[in-house]
Amino acid sequence: MNQEYIKADVWSIIEEGYDQETVKSSESLFSLGNGAMGQRANFEERYTGPTFQGSYIAGVYYPDKTRVGWWKNGYPEYFAKVLNAPNWIGIDVLINNEPLDLFTCSSVTDFRRELNMKEGWYKRKFKATLPNSIKVQVEITRFLSLDLNELGAIDYNITLLDQDAEVTFIPYLDSGITNEDSNWDDKFWNTTAVDSKGSRAYIEAHTMKTNFKTCTFMHAELYHAGKKLNVAPGLSKKDTWVGHTYTQKVKQGEPISLHKFGGYTVSRYHKTGSLVEAADSVLDQALELGFDVLLEKQKKAWASIWQMSDITIDGDIKAQQGIRFNIFQLNQTYLGTDSRLNIGPKGFTGEKYGGSTYWDTEAYCIPFYMATKDQKVARNLLKYRYAHLEKAIENARKLGFKNGAALYPMVTMNGEECHNEWEITFEEIHRNGAIAFAIFNYYRFTGDYSYIPEMGLEVLIGIARFWYQRANYSEAKNKYVILGVTGPNEYENNVNNNWYTNYLAKWCIEYTLEQLQKVKDGYPDDYQRIIGHTQLTSNETDKWKGVAKNMYFPYSEKYGVYLQQDGFLDKELITVEHLDKLDRPINQKWSWDRILRSPYIKQADVLQCFYFFEDHFPLEDLQKHFDFYEPFTVHESSLSPCVHSIQAAKLDRMDQAYRFYLRTSRLDLDDYNKEVEEGLHITSMAGTWMSIVEGFGGLRVIDDKLSFTPRIPKNWKSYSFKINFRNRILKVTVTATDTLFNLEGREQMSIRLNGKRLELNPNEEISA
Amino acid sequence: MNQEYIKADVWSIIEEGYDQETVKSSESLFSLGNGAMGQRANFEERYTGPTFQGSYIAGVYYPDKTRVGWWKNGYPEYFAKVLNAPNWIGIDVLINNEPLDLFTCSSVTDFRRELNMKEGWYKRKFKATLPNSIKVQVEITRFLSLDLNELGAIDYNITLLDQDAEVTFIPYLDSGITNEDSNWDDKFWNTTAVDSKGSRAYIEAHTMKTNFKTCTFMHAELYHAGKKLNVAPGLSKKDTWVGHTYTQKVKQGEPISLHKFGGYTVSRYHKTGSLVEAADSVLDQALELGFDVLLEKQKKAWASIWQMSDITIDGDIKAQQGIRFNIFQLNQTYLGTDSRLNIGPKGFTGEKYGGSTYWDTEAYCIPFYMATKDQKVARNLLKYRYAHLEKAIENARKLGFKNGAALYPMVTMNGEECHNEWEITFEEIHRNGAIAFAIFNYYRFTGDYSYIPEMGLEVLIGIARFWYQRANYSEAKNKYVILGVTGPNEYENNVNNNWYTNYLAKWCIEYTLEQLQKVKDGYPDDYQRIIGHTQLTSNETDKWKGVAKNMYFPYSEKYGVYLQQDGFLDKELITVEHLDKLDRPINQKWSWDRILRSPYIKQADVLQCFYFFEDHFPLEDLQKHFDFYEPFTVHESSLSPCVHSIQAAKLDRMDQAYRFYLRTSRLDLDDYNKEVEEGLHITSMAGTWMSIVEGFGGLRVIDDKLSFTPRIPKNWKSYSFKINFRNRILKVTVTATDTLFNLEGREQMSIRLNGKRLELNPNEEISA
Repeated sequence: MNQEYIKADVWSIIEEGYDQETVKSSESLFSLGNGAMGQRANFEERYTGPTFQGSYIAGVYYPDKTRVGWWKNGYPEYFAKVLNAPNWIGIDVLINNEPLDLFTCSSVTDFRRELNMKEGWYKRKFKATLPNSIKVQVEITRFLSLDLNELGAIDYNITLLDQDAEVTFIPYLDSGITNEDSNWDDKFWNTTAVDSKGSRAYIEAHTMKTNFKTCTFMHAELYHAGKKLNVAPGLSKKDTWVGHTYTQKVKQGEPISLHKFGGYTVSRYHKTGSLVEAADSVLDQALELGFDVLLEKQKKAWASIWQMSDITIDGDIKAQQGIRFNIFQLNQTYLGTDSRLNIGPKGFTGEKYGGSTYWDTEAYCIPFYMATKDQKVARNLLKYRYAHLEKAIENARKLGFKNGAALYPMVTMNGEECHNEWEITFEEIHRNGAIAFAIFNYYRFTGDYSYIPEMGLEVLIGIARFWYQRANYSEAKNKYVILGVTGPNEYENNVNNNWYTNYLAKWCIEYTLEQLQKVKDGYPDDYQRIIGHTQLTSNETDKWKGVAKNMYFPYSEKYGVYLQQDGFLDKELITVEHLDKLDRPINQKWSWDRILRSPYIKQADVLQCFYFFEDHFPLEDLQKHFDFYEPFTVHESSLSPCVHSIQAAKLDRMDQAYRFYLRTSRLDLDDYNKEVEEGLHITSMAGTWMSIVEGFGGLRVIDDKLSFTPRIPKNWKSYSFKINFRNRILKVTVTATDTLFNLEGREQMSIRLNGKRLELNPNEEISA
Repeated sequence: MNQEYIKADVWSIIEEGYDQETVKSSESLFSLGNGAMGQRANFEERYTGPTFQGSYIAGVYYPDKTRVGWWKNGYPEYFAKVLNAPNWIGIDVLINNEPLDLFTCSSVTDFRRELNMKEGWYKRKFKATLPNSIKVQVEITRFLSLDLNELGAIDYNITLLDQDAEVTFIPYLDSGITNEDSNWDDKFWNTTAVDSKGSRAYIEAHTMKTNFKTCTFMHAELYHAGKKLNVAPGLSKKDTWVGHTYTQKVKQGEPISLHKFGGYTVSRYHKTGSLVEAADSVLDQALELGFDVLLEKQKKAWASIWQMSDITIDGDIKAQQGIRFNIFQLNQTYLGTDSRLNIGPKGFTGEKYGGSTYWDTEAYCIPFYMATKDQKVARNLLKYRYAHLEKAIENARKLGFKNGAALYPMVTMNGEECHNEWEITFEEIHRNGAIAFAIFNYYRFTGDYSYIPEMGLEVLIGIARFWYQRANYSEAKNKYVILGVTGPNEYENNVNNNWYTNYLAKWCIEYTLEQLQKVKDGYPDDYQRIIGHTQLTSNETDKWKGVAKNMYFPYSEKYGVYLQQDGFLDKELITVEHLDKLDRPINQKWSWDRILRSPYIKQADVLQCFYFFEDHFPLEDLQKHFDFYEPFTVHESSLSPCVHSIQAAKLDRMDQAYRFYLRTSRLDLDDYNKEVEEGLHITSMAGTWMSIVEGFGGLRVIDDKLSFTPRIPKNWKSYSFKINFRNRILKVTVTATDTLFNLEGREQMSIRLNGKRLELNPNEEISA
């Protein structure tokens, strides 16, 4: 398989030519989503070749019983995962009773897929010769509506190329689906009703255990030679399947097409008994508008998203395609309207990681959503964690912590821990720090302090309590230490005094103490409520202070750098460039113990801290640490290159920054990690956005003002991005020589450019 | 359930009273084995209550596909496990067509089990009232023959207590069995033939994948009122089951009994096509002798085992019962006649740990077998590892080692690694050292050097190569370090510089270098062969020397002790006595990360090294280390108390030594770890023997001579044990005031008692 088979194009993802080897990869790359549901780009018609079927409904999950080799105390009993949902896209096609199946066709030519990111639709075309020798031309357009987010639409269009024939469409619904990533082959769905009414059909099914009730629905219409036919379909029903049969004699050259509307109504948004009624209401609206009008509205809706979130790059088509693909997928995955939802690492493109929430949200995604959406979207993401505070306290309690200490889960759907690998689940506790950092970052960017007295302070108290209890006094060091952790570099496990974790712990406690004072002074009612609820005493906060003040930080005098962990310098410090190519990626070539003993770093760890808290350290410190750690970093996490790209840009090493940028932006398009078949890396896509806006553009918020230190890769003519800063929209365009600012709205805005103050007038292009 | 329901008795294990709650525990405690096969003490007749069925054939295993939560590179694909084998002991019993099933009987009285360890048989008696109100008295005797080790025999005797009735026996064979410890519910056995011939039946079945062919066979005879009946049984056959039906009208008070002979013939010992023939031959011999004669021979065979291996304790019945139970179970498990077999931690009493070989064999079992058996038994155990050397080299290669470095597996059946938990599989590498130590220990005890030039030196070279490659130079310490290991204390994972491991590594290299020289000097032909085969150069051995010479050993100046690992002193050093009882055992009460951060030690680690290499350290060092580490040791491994008992005895702390002894000797009888239902802890039973012989008796071999420093627990009148030292049999009896020696044979022997030389004349009791 050609790993770079996607055509370069500024607005579309294009594959040309039918290759059975790329079907599963393309199913991932051409995935569709609208924030509420999504699917892999599975073929509508039957396909008997290798395929990975997947349809997903946001927030509809199943707690799959944990499966481990050797049980360890504290493992959660369940791993909640977003399920493969009933299939509504399926359309069996028969020509003179011969099934159309690309895997069995004697020839497939002119095959082309296009995912049009600008307009939010996916089109597939091909010519095929069926086993019965009939030649057809097929063109299918599909989209998931942003306006009616319970609806998807398909136009399945066939033209007979060499003879007249009988064409049969069997649009169907199927709830007899399975998950590839199932631990015990449990039955996930229980189908309670399979119904049909005229051109419509419905399958009512609920998830086992969690009892999310869903109605999967469809309505089909047949068009022949441009005219809608009023035909009543034949009906077939099975236990978990319902199909409608439309058969039509068709002349050579006359197009025949089926419009299929379908989707899900879910008990999360409708009364349990009214899911079919709700489905009818969606379908009524869809039919009233019709396929073409719906598609026009789709284009407008996407135009409005791009209006705010597009990044343009002039002079580098692949870079342009990469960043748009990233922005498009983020918007397909999460639109921020429901605070019960979050951003799964694979979005709606695969099953891996269970579609659940990781620390990726706070560390990588929030900046993107803060800057390109209304700020209530980021607030919803913070609210999500507040809603899970009780579960985080329970989670910590299960591990032996007390008194309201909170440990947010490594992976979660409803606040309960799902992950089960001790060195991660119990030890990758820095996630708690990222959640506190996101609170800080949200306020810094939005200026909206209200979250802290309303919700955030309680989250911070739980987190500070955790760090206080998790540290212990080392007599040998006369300092507080944090033993047995895994830092962001998951290629070291169960280490002592991971610098990043210790730094975050200290910072979390100090930040919490500051916010306690601030809320006490400014929001006395909230303060009273919170103190009453948490039973926090000054005796307790004094103890916190002691730990924060005397935290231990491993440091090397010789190299003048903080050490990633206590034992780092005992390793054989051979840099990545000396590694044999055959040894890479080490996570596929080396045994786990060998990786752990090696100095190789999976993703930014010490440098992640320099990213979060850059103003705590002078630039020469960053340089020293970058020069020390970058040579050991193998970037085998999708979350790594973006941070290194930002740091390299800050150090004015633009060639290096650009190489990291390409790697992060085209990770999936060029399948760097050889795993795109499993789905896309959604959360790291926000890191790509950061690479341009924070890395190249140098965006920071300093003292309530936007600040920029723009740089540009040498092969780019220009690039531009927009920022929604406290409800002001600012477009920034960077060329090799200038930076242009376009401020929308009515008021002036004061910013900093390369450290100097600059006043921007609205609706006036300022070049500087 | 009463955890101490076993009656104290010097020679028998006795349970009185039927308690459904103890059935599974007793199935373990009353297990039978004869080195070639074994079974849990499952009832012969049907039992519908909770039970754990298990029959096992030595060395007949299945490679079960590995099951983990998250795959890590280097994990083995399979976990070979000894299988639950076809059941030959089953006898369905019906009285007037009502099945006898203790779980459904309206009353069960006078229930008694006895495992007679002196004579090697197991008897169960009870009176029961069936649901049809018929009262019966039942007495069943069972044993697994030591003389014919493919044969077991059962006498199933029934007396009707209150009326005449029709009694039906259905002895059967069943290969439709399953494993509780199955990863994927694979089918383990394929049954190829189910046959019957007169009073005999046969099931031929082979294990999937490994294709061990077996014939499970039986022959039954019916006795009524003391007379053998010549009746032809009715026949029932299913796909994996064959039964014979014997029905007899029986008068009240007249005993009726069924003798059932059964067992296995296996392709390991017979030609594939002749298993039925071999079974017939075994049965012919059994029938010729008859049940009673076979039982007499069994008593004699066990008498001969006890003759050499018994330990007597006068004045402490529970201690006496404990040590005999341990010696009995070791002899049931392994008799040392086949070098392809080894000692599984659960023997023939359960499925856990897969019935495979651990480092327990070298570290704990070899001393017992060396001293109580012909020395070829211990040699067979060493030969086992030599036979697996190529696989150990392959195992190391899979983890990235080169040039013939060998890493023996953590768990194995055929030399391949089976274990899959990275912190153990890849990191608990000290097992390699125990194998080298066993070579040293074997020669020290037996004086048989021949193993080393013939086989051992190659094993040592592979092990030395591993240690050389596994250590790395630390610039920071200017020493060689061993990073990322798990020591014997499995409550610390992935630590750096576990002192025990580093010490073993250094010792292994130095011992190998010594043996190279010795073989070069004394066995030049062997030396040439080995050098040719291993391609060892002086350049390579020079590098080994460098590593051994500059090995790093963590040490605390403050406490004057070697540190278990680099980070030990950063822990909160709160001793076990301050732990709340509710927190124990910590492996059931605490999450894994909390255990890892704690200072608590699962089993002897630093002290294990002091046990292996006691002459490397002065006594005051032992005392210092014992005083430092014992207070942190929770002894949650069955392998822990014995070592601490030996060390406490050496320090003349006999009260403590005795408490550890009781814990090790009655671990299963008193179910300290609350898991006896799963099977017995066989390998640690050898540690119990060491506690008495090496701990209390102070047995050592110094300069080719036996040496003793006897001590006695204060509540004991005396104890005695026998030692086979280089084919000389010496009985040692220790009282509070004297030590008595009885030397068998014809020659004098010189020993040391409390450091003083003592000449022993044969067949003369010497008191000193």
